[in-house]
Amino acid sequence: MNANSEAYVVGVDFGTLSGRAVVVRVSDGAELGSAVHEYAHRVIEDRLPGTDVRLGPDWALQSPEDWRDVLRNAVPKALAVAGVPASQVIGIGTDFTACTVLPATADGTPLSEIHPDRPHAWPKLWKHHAAQPHADRINALAAERGETWLPRYGGKISSEWQFAKGLQMLEEDPEIYGLADRWIEAADWIIWQLAGVETRNVCTAGYKGVYQDGGYPSAEFLAALNPGFADFTGKLGHELAPLGGLAGRLTAQAAEWTRLPEGIAVAVGNVDAHVTAAAADAVRPGQMVAIMGTSTCHIMPSGELAEVPGMCGVVRDGIVPGLWGYEAGQSGVGDIFGWFAETSVPASYSEKAAELGVSVHEYLTSLAERQPVGAHGLVALDWHNGNRSVLVDHNLSGVIVGQTLATRPEDIYRALIEATAFGARVIVDTFEASGVPVEEFVVAGGLLKNRFLMQVYSDVLRRPLSVIGSDQGPALGSAIHAAVAAGAYADITAAAATMGKRTAAVYSPDPARADAYDRLYAEYRKLHDHFADGGMLHRLRAIRNEAAR
Amino acid sequence: MNANSEAYVVGVDFGTLSGRAVVVRVSDGAELGSAVHEYAHRVIEDRLPGTDVRLGPDWALQSPEDWRDVLRNAVPKALAVAGVPASQVIGIGTDFTACTVLPATADGTPLSEIHPDRPHAWPKLWKHHAAQPHADRINALAAERGETWLPRYGGKISSEWQFAKGLQMLEEDPEIYGLADRWIEAADWIIWQLAGVETRNVCTAGYKGVYQDGGYPSAEFLAALNPGFADFTGKLGHELAPLGGLAGRLTAQAAEWTRLPEGIAVAVGNVDAHVTAAAADAVRPGQMVAIMGTSTCHIMPSGELAEVPGMCGVVRDGIVPGLWGYEAGQSGVGDIFGWFAETSVPASYSEKAAELGVSVHEYLTSLAERQPVGAHGLVALDWHNGNRSVLVDHNLSGVIVGQTLATRPEDIYRALIEATAFGARVIVDTFEASGVPVEEFVVAGGLLKNRFLMQVYSDVLRRPLSVIGSDQGPALGSAIHAAVAAGAYADITAAAATMGKRTAAVYSPDPARADAYDRLYAEYRKLHDHFADGGMLHRLRAIRNEAAR
Repeated sequence: MNANSEAYVVGVDFGTLSGRAVVVRVSDGAELGSAVHEYAHRVIEDRLPGTDVRLGPDWALQSPEDWRDVLRNAVPKALAVAGVPASQVIGIGTDFTACTVLPATADGTPLSEIHPDRPHAWPKLWKHHAAQPHADRINALAAERGETWLPRYGGKISSEWQFAKGLQMLEEDPEIYGLADRWIEAADWIIWQLAGVETRNVCTAGYKGVYQDGGYPSAEFLAALNPGFADFTGKLGHELAPLGGLAGRLTAQAAEWTRLPEGIAVAVGNVDAHVTAAAADAVRPGQMVAIMGTSTCHIMPSGELAEVPGMCGVVRDGIVPGLWGYEAGQSGVGDIFGWFAETSVPASYSEKAAELGVSVHEYLTSLAERQPVGAHGLVALDWHNGNRSVLVDHNLSGVIVGQTLATRPEDIYRALIEATAFGARVIVDTFEASGVPVEEFVVAGGLLKNRFLMQVYSDVLRRPLSVIGSDQGPALGSAIHAAVAAGAYADITAAAATMGKRTAAVYSPDPARADAYDRLYAEYRKLHDHFADGGMLHRLRAIRNEAAR
Repeated sequence: MNANSEAYVVGVDFGTLSGRAVVVRVSDGAELGSAVHEYAHRVIEDRLPGTDVRLGPDWALQSPEDWRDVLRNAVPKALAVAGVPASQVIGIGTDFTACTVLPATADGTPLSEIHPDRPHAWPKLWKHHAAQPHADRINALAAERGETWLPRYGGKISSEWQFAKGLQMLEEDPEIYGLADRWIEAADWIIWQLAGVETRNVCTAGYKGVYQDGGYPSAEFLAALNPGFADFTGKLGHELAPLGGLAGRLTAQAAEWTRLPEGIAVAVGNVDAHVTAAAADAVRPGQMVAIMGTSTCHIMPSGELAEVPGMCGVVRDGIVPGLWGYEAGQSGVGDIFGWFAETSVPASYSEKAAELGVSVHEYLTSLAERQPVGAHGLVALDWHNGNRSVLVDHNLSGVIVGQTLATRPEDIYRALIEATAFGARVIVDTFEASGVPVEEFVVAGGLLKNRFLMQVYSDVLRRPLSVIGSDQGPALGSAIHAAVAAGAYADITAAAATMGKRTAAVYSPDPARADAYDRLYAEYRKLHDHFADGGMLHRLRAIRNEAAR
């Protein structure tokens, strides 16, 4: 194949604050150019754009026009940067944050573009948390009725997901609820914009839409929540599209936005975390991909169906067709280090970091990494943002044990890093104890740049760490899905094997350090189990919430 | 009494880094002038002065010449500041840190002035902690033998005290041990310098010398520790002098140093904490004086003898003649706030404090005091420097529970303040539960200046707080003892009633806040009791110590 006949695909990753497009060579996955477009409205948390309508606490919305702007700006720019003629692009794939969901008319028009002054008409971003009371009711009723889908989600569904957000819409703005012909993930809505056809991908339907064993929760169950909610699933999709499938062909309108050829393949929508597995060539059973950033998401295909305590979800075909796809998560990881660096490091440290020309994180790491394991005398619980897996309790909070007058900031920083590694070990151990073996631990995401942190994880997990070979994993993964949808590869596994990038055993455990961490991990488990019942942490939170009122 | 015939006394407080003299009017306790003299050698921790002899870890020594310099400098200067003619001074009293103890010849010459190159010849400051292994052996043997004096010290004597430091001297430098005719508290040695006669005060003999029920630990007990230690009490004093008693008369030599009249009364030596009770006019049964600084010392006379778990000591006549004197303590208080302000407060806070022209402590307090009780959602254990009362365990360490990504420095600062208040409540509750009622809580010391902190203590203790009316409590207390020794008052109680300064109920508990604190205190007690066994904290410390080797 010579350069003139090379085929290319475009992957677009829609994140929380911006969208990124990357142009990728089909033959080998080379990333030839990329571009980022920041959302004009970022996250809408205070008031609706162009209005005086204020939002309540814990609301988080986005603007569909910001997403279209990514297609108009980032895609042509990435193409220009890559120096690739548009004519050689054979497909486009996308991934999105999830559950980011919006009400739309039967032709896909977002209700926010018809009723811009109604909060519930706007897309609810994944981190809209105002539907917690609705999620609580759903969980309580599901547990009471013994709904068979509940254990598929570690025993609890999230306030972030489609049903909780939909119930909130019904109960707080029934008129908008009635006008919503569709309740659709942004991951699928963007495909509608590109291909002009409505699809529903199996991934968001399963992980965020509680679609299990061929159906959604029953009308009877929904009616028991609220009689008006019985028809809710009529707004969802019932024919699910497989990942890597062809959703449709690029419309003239979308071709004009993106400057890509009309009629090229548009891949079925997907989720940022799940699509990263393909980018890391980690879509075989037992390959657990940890996407480590502000939080960590764990994605793993498996041939086994099991009920793993505290997992986020297990979905048939949810990562690749033919396998069960598991998801688990740690609610706070990089966020905890960021919080510490921002709130708990004295001027002398930030000045020294500036003098050395490094970030506060780099400076703390340089001090922390010199210590022998356990020399700080500390153990911490990484629950500052709650605990998703394996406790599924967002009302937990952080704990630190062992401070003395000699404790320095780098000691606590290191203890927090270790706490997140211990949290990861709890998850891996829980999968294995549930009969779902973890064969390989593959890391993607922004925390990869901290080599010390990676070594801690390798030592704590007593496993080699494989590492993704791209710093734009989701966009690359979407491009791989585009190549499959365009027919360049037989399936995701084959495409990922050629286009994905993974280096095995970049970090290997040191036996002596691993032994030392075993002792600290034993203390972490004791602390974990002591506070896991939530008794004290829930009471402190209740006292806090009462005091704040 | 007109001005010409007014009588005055001088009190001298020998602290850790300096000595302070104050000139006080006998008739009403007015403090007319004071002066501070900093020790030239401060704390000797690295090498012996004028030598290359290095000290081991945890050593802390002082120089007797520094103490004489206080007499030579601070006393005349205070007199000059007061504008009082020396001829009208009728007595001098002193107090000292304790247990600060030195080996001396039979004429009172410090061995450090004969053998300046021998570490064990020097005075060991109270915070010399290198005798911990010796203290451990003493405690283990005493417990094994069921020594009746052990419960009088809450079940454990300290490595800081006379017997542990003496045993260390014997075993590490038997020659110096043999040359030491005397093993004497600095509190008594300074009296020897002033009055030319050797005395032993009942306070240090009881609290630091394990003198109980008319005697020291038996020769049999001491021989079981080390055969060479059997004669140790021969170096101590066996006729004890009562507090407020007349030790002797000012010698010509001491008159020359101090510019005070030869022959005036020299009061029996005392300890800085205990003498403060007189300054606060709090020497009646049930008046607990809390001297709150880097740590807190609790001093309380009582008519009852009881074994209070975790107290530092109970000594007959140990505060005032005729009553039992109780001592308890919190190992870390102001030290914890200082550690936090130094290590855990970001540049934005220190810059804002500088901009406002306040200290970081004041700035943190201004933010913390705006919060309703419990709004931070935190509870902490104040064990960063171990726990003296009521757990007597210096291998405990700090714990903080409830941190989230929204936790701010002022939240933690407030939680640490509250933790020390909860620690004080545990002590008060333990005294009362042991049948020793606490009638009044009287505060002295440097932390008095934080009004918010005082209010927290009042709310947490559910008691009014009385406050000392002097910021040089120990020196004033020593002056009061001088007045008694000079015969101006019948006893300490009478002198304290006139010369001491205490304002009752300066802070009163707010019932709503006190109720809210009751809920947090319940969580503190649960955390306290969970970690009190030391299991996890001891294991973390052992891991730390092994890692550091």
